[in-house]
Amino acid sequence: MPIIEMHMLEGRSLEDKARLAEKVTSACCEALDCNASTVRILITEHKNGEFFVAGKAGRASDQAAAAQSSGEGAQPL
Amino acid sequence: MPIIEMHMLEGRSLEDKARLAEKVTSACCEALDCNASTVRILITEHKNGEFFVAGKAGRASDQAAAAQSSGEGAQPL
Amino acid sequence: MPIIEMHMLEGRSLEDKARLAEKVTSACCEALDCNASTVRILITEHKNGEFFVAGKAGRASDQAAAAQSSGEGAQPL
Amino acid sequence: MPIIEMHMLEGRSLEDKARLAEKVTSACCEALDCNASTVRILITEHKNGEFFVAGKAGRASDQAAAAQSSGEGAQPL
Amino acid sequence: MPIIEMHMLEGRSLEDKARLAEKVTSACCEALDCNASTVRILITEHKNGEFFVAGKAGRASDQAAAAQSSGEGAQPL
Amino acid sequence: MPIIEMHMLEGRSLEDKARLAEKVTSACCEALDCNASTVRILITEHKNGEFFVAGKAGRASDQAAAAQSSGEGAQPL
Repeated sequence: MPIIEMHMLEGRSLEDKARLAEKVTSACCEALDCNASTVRILITEHKNGEFFVAGKAGRASDQAAAAQSSGEGAQPL
Repeated sequence: MPIIEMHMLEGRSLEDKARLAEKVTSACCEALDCNASTVRILITEHKNGEFFVAGKAGRASDQAAAAQSSGEGAQPL
Repeated sequence: MPIIEMHMLEGRSLEDKARLAEKVTSACCEALDCNASTVRILITEHKNGEFFVAGKAGRASDQAAAAQSSGEGAQPL
Repeated sequence: MPIIEMHMLEGRSLEDKARLAEKVTSACCEALDCNASTVRILITEHKNGEFFVAGKAGRASDQAAAAQSSGEGAQPL
Repeated sequence: MPIIEMHMLEGRSLEDKARLAEKVTSACCEALDCNASTVRILITEHKNGEFFVAGKAGRASDQAAAAQSSGEGAQPL
Repeated sequence: MPIIEMHMLEGRSLEDKARLAEKVTSACCEALDCNASTVRILITEHKNGEFFVAGKAGRASDQAAAAQSSGEGAQPL
């Protein structure tokens, strides 16, 4: 049955989103042993000024988070 | 940045949900070329009487849908 | 296609929820001229301390709102 | 109290959405015996490439589902 | 961890939304004693014909509600 | 009009949630110059195995994120 809502920053192509939906659907089917026909995915895109981390607009903050976690140590975040 | 809400019927084990989260996170990273640290997943489980397809409680209907789509023809749904 | 999430205060019976789903599904089909099989409904129940109007826990506030709107005038709210 | 989020494919007129909201509100009031003033409805429209069934973009898949369920037998989906 | 989805009628400036996110993030940190870096906010704007109170398009109804509650008495709504 | 859904890990007291709702409502009213009666808040709590960051169950990951950002450098995340 999974119904999946995905919130993303806008800017992805139709192809990106189609590939995302295909891969996430497969991941669900593998993990839950369910039929693909029961998996529904809704994507909602948000403009840059509509997503915030720590109270700051998202894209910059998100990149900072990624930079941190791929940073100088063994941070598994 | 993806923030993902997954709605499922209750009854999955902690291991199922952990495996699901791991596989969906990987699927996002591959499809969007993003860092895993930016992927957040929220699972909400619904009891059987809280999910409906065509106005009928969900589990039975969902199985009917799956049965149909794996049925006697070439239905690609 | 409609996918419908309904948030309600907890306390309704299974029968109430089934009747709600049935009536809402019919309403969608009539208004959108769509097939019932494309209508999915998810109900999420919230405890009394998880729903707030004007910053106050919900049930009392909700009743106040209803009382107001059925009140002494011609309030079309 | 019901707060209702409806996800639909884009393309409906304002009149369609107004009629939908009116009918769904009435359905809630009848089923839950609540005051209309406590019913709030949010509609989110999704573009065709933002809704997926079985990993495929939604409109086509949704029509396939409807076709199946209105099909040649007594399918209760 | 809080992940917060805010649904609003469209028409707010980027500055309004940034100030909103900043203040709501601070409110969370104070109330929950959590680190701002764990607070994520998603804003979804709805057009006037996509939000309904009591089955009527939202802005008018919302203003009626506000007028009522700031009205002539000691209404605790 | 804001309608706000807050997703949190379970474990907060009723008092915590009431204080959170009160502060977030005030933050909205200040930032948007709107009447408190138009602000509705829904809290959904998730168990520890239902929230994931980078594919890992949430609480630990969330604390790691907080630790990082309050860490030995000037990371403003």
